Amino acid sequence: MGWIDLNCDMGEGFGVYRLGADEELMGEITSANIACGYHAGDPSVMRKTVKLALSSGVAIGAHPGLPDLAGFGRRNMDISPEEAMDLVTYQIGALQAIAKQEGGRLHHVKPHGALYNMAAVSAPLADAIAEAVCRTDESLILYGLAGSELLAAGARYGLTTASEVFADRTYQPDGTLTPRRLPHALITDTDQAVRQVIRMVKEGTVTSADGAEVTIQADTVCLHGDGEHAITFARELRVRLEAEGIGVKPAGV
Amino acid sequence: MGWIDLNCDMGEGFGVYRLGADEELMGEITSANIACGYHAGDPSVMRKTVKLALSSGVAIGAHPGLPDLAGFGRRNMDISPEEAMDLVTYQIGALQAIAKQEGGRLHHVKPHGALYNMAAVSAPLADAIAEAVCRTDESLILYGLAGSELLAAGARYGLTTASEVFADRTYQPDGTLTPRRLPHALITDTDQAVRQVIRMVKEGTVTSADGAEVTIQADTVCLHGDGEHAITFARELRVRLEAEGIGVKPAGV
Amino acid sequence: MGWIDLNCDMGEGFGVYRLGADEELMGEITSANIACGYHAGDPSVMRKTVKLALSSGVAIGAHPGLPDLAGFGRRNMDISPEEAMDLVTYQIGALQAIAKQEGGRLHHVKPHGALYNMAAVSAPLADAIAEAVCRTDESLILYGLAGSELLAAGARYGLTTASEVFADRTYQPDGTLTPRRLPHALITDTDQAVRQVIRMVKEGTVTSADGAEVTIQADTVCLHGDGEHAITFARELRVRLEAEGIGVKPAGV
Amino acid sequence: MGWIDLNCDMGEGFGVYRLGADEELMGEITSANIACGYHAGDPSVMRKTVKLALSSGVAIGAHPGLPDLAGFGRRNMDISPEEAMDLVTYQIGALQAIAKQEGGRLHHVKPHGALYNMAAVSAPLADAIAEAVCRTDESLILYGLAGSELLAAGARYGLTTASEVFADRTYQPDGTLTPRRLPHALITDTDQAVRQVIRMVKEGTVTSADGAEVTIQADTVCLHGDGEHAITFARELRVRLEAEGIGVKPAGV
Repeated sequence: MGWIDLNCDMGEGFGVYRLGADEELMGEITSANIACGYHAGDPSVMRKTVKLALSSGVAIGAHPGLPDLAGFGRRNMDISPEEAMDLVTYQIGALQAIAKQEGGRLHHVKPHGALYNMAAVSAPLADAIAEAVCRTDESLILYGLAGSELLAAGARYGLTTASEVFADRTYQPDGTLTPRRLPHALITDTDQAVRQVIRMVKEGTVTSADGAEVTIQADTVCLHGDGEHAITFARELRVRLEAEGIGVKPAGV
Repeated sequence: MGWIDLNCDMGEGFGVYRLGADEELMGEITSANIACGYHAGDPSVMRKTVKLALSSGVAIGAHPGLPDLAGFGRRNMDISPEEAMDLVTYQIGALQAIAKQEGGRLHHVKPHGALYNMAAVSAPLADAIAEAVCRTDESLILYGLAGSELLAAGARYGLTTASEVFADRTYQPDGTLTPRRLPHALITDTDQAVRQVIRMVKEGTVTSADGAEVTIQADTVCLHGDGEHAITFARELRVRLEAEGIGVKPAGV
Repeated sequence: MGWIDLNCDMGEGFGVYRLGADEELMGEITSANIACGYHAGDPSVMRKTVKLALSSGVAIGAHPGLPDLAGFGRRNMDISPEEAMDLVTYQIGALQAIAKQEGGRLHHVKPHGALYNMAAVSAPLADAIAEAVCRTDESLILYGLAGSELLAAGARYGLTTASEVFADRTYQPDGTLTPRRLPHALITDTDQAVRQVIRMVKEGTVTSADGAEVTIQADTVCLHGDGEHAITFARELRVRLEAEGIGVKPAGV
Repeated sequence: MGWIDLNCDMGEGFGVYRLGADEELMGEITSANIACGYHAGDPSVMRKTVKLALSSGVAIGAHPGLPDLAGFGRRNMDISPEEAMDLVTYQIGALQAIAKQEGGRLHHVKPHGALYNMAAVSAPLADAIAEAVCRTDESLILYGLAGSELLAAGARYGLTTASEVFADRTYQPDGTLTPRRLPHALITDTDQAVRQVIRMVKEGTVTSADGAEVTIQADTVCLHGDGEHAITFARELRVRLEAEGIGVKPAGV
């Protein structure tokens, strides 16, 4: 028995641009990470996405990113911890006001893309993000990569954290993700991906790419937001989780 | 006897760019309109300006603008009321989170530049802004041009409003400002400007450019933020107000 | 007998965002208006689109827009003629350098969206754009709405101009487009749209929405870049034009 | 005897924002690196700066930067070589068109800030920039840090290059600049800074921070663009260079 949260990045359009199958995927997940205007999203897309999440009973999270719309927040940038704290606060606040207007409230914060990756390995950056979250609303749950500096920083600031795992990525013996440039980094077989999640939830372990058993905390699984495969996979995962007696609900609730 | 609020646009730098004599002027005013990142300002400038206002005992207001950094929010843009509501909410929320982190809270909202001017004459735009303010925090005070559609909209939404007057601009018989392109639009004589303010506060009237007596509500005076003259004028105004028994404090308090 | 140019807006993606069916439509048109990074497009999208146009034998045009990515350049902005001249020059120059690197050269300039619409009715803005084009390269062809101030300005600056008509819009007795907010503004019937184009080319007239015969110059037809219908319509139009003995080629060649 | 170029970053304002003493410094230098709208500058500032350079007889260079206005292009970003090539081409082209309209032409290209620093040590990035310059106009001179990968890449692409040295920075035994975070990185004494330049020009050597004699090629000296000290230093340097029989002129001419 056990529980898992299914999270997905949402609201990543901008102006006339659309991205992702938000409407279809919102029905399959339990928490939505909503872009806040820096790497993607704009105030109108944010409101529309908040409404969609609320009407679907999905927990709303802020998904702050680097100020890099052209690069979709995926390019590392040498921002200082002070800058990180300020721009994360700004983005959370903006979404918070929109969520409040629509009768909702924020449940969590998950940094996006390069900010997420940099905060996974940089304690100063992780502390800055955790401080931004904590000082905005100490009840917000901080989502971060399993085993990351970001989760450690969240704990230091007294935040509830959610340890995020991936269904379609392989892990290394030290518990980190196999870098995408290496062979076997991705799991393309749906059944294997689903079994990896189930085992992480039920047993708290994952088999690394070279066969080692690694302890891992799985509070939330990251689902991808685009492509036909995304919806198919989400549905398959939910069916299989149910069959295993694993419930789905937002992390920390 | 009477009271008046002295407001000034603040935090209008961006990145490495500096604008305005914030440090010196903050000591002369009672409420600060802080740029929120659209026409000027960035998260770090916003935090610095919030801290400066708090340490000076100055009321903090959000100063949302059009998404036009290159034009400093001074170029009219045909945004829809829905877009206005969303981008005003976004900007207020962002500043609200920063203010809360620093131990402060927002006191008012004053739209910037072209957004202010367009909302003065467009009821749908004014309604959109008033709704954004009201649904974010109904205790926020809405600053708008004396006699404007924005103040009317604020009243429709049940907001406390502050009627803004100008010391260095002349008025027309209908109570609107003389457009800048016309002769005599500006009052360059300090004494005349100060006397105009005092009379607006004490008598609720202003003499229009062609000599008519016009009724006007003066809750707050807009002071300019740049130039040596700005500080000199602010100090002169305060001395003369005090001599007339007129106190200064944030609007609506 | 006669000739017509089929133009289409291209390269309107940005970063990860895709927009329009560029690959499929490029084979149906004779000139491409390539976004230059202000309302849409980025340097990498521009290069990709230039390459696609060159490999398809399609004439390359700059498609400068207002600095409003969030609004896709569709919202009127009160920019000055000087600002218009500078930002149009900037955008043409940027595309020119990329085109040159890929072994091509610019054939025309067509302003985008709100800039196109504003320049259709404002002589000062139209002059600024024509001057920007002329002083960059006097051999560039200026595309503008049939009967517009922009075409008049192009003529004043000695530029070759191309008078643009629409297949799917109705015209008013004065030769202007019926505003979209009015009934009958759009022609949804493919056959009617095709016949309107053929008649404009062969007879130089269009029947206005209220039945009047209006003289119109048709050098180029604007095709839409998105939707399944766009490609179907483009193909149908080409077949019917050929059947009428009307050839297609870039304007002014 | 010998020659040196005195270059300075120019046109780094944006919209209402001003930065640097362009008017005063333009009279002291021989080549201007003009911001192209990514890290600073906008089309109107670019035109104004081009005019100022032309009227001062100063060589015009493009100063392309990272797409990071908020960080003034000073924060490293993980852009790909392809992205670098595209955005450098875009920026050069934009300035080229403006320069041509004003009767001038580009003389050189010097990457800005973090792009300059990254290209100094990354051969793939340096190659991308050199290719962008070469394929835009092979007569353009590429400015880069003395001993850098950027200069090596310029040579590989057959470009004339200019080796840039600094008056107010100390060097390490391997010829690289002492990082700013280390002690003795900056030379604050005007006389020592001037003597370092003169020696680099006359003898082709510099004494490193720990006393070693290092060979260095000095084609151009970077002068700073802001602060009272900048103008004073520029004037002092010119007087002293003249006294030593060293002439000043744009690099490569």
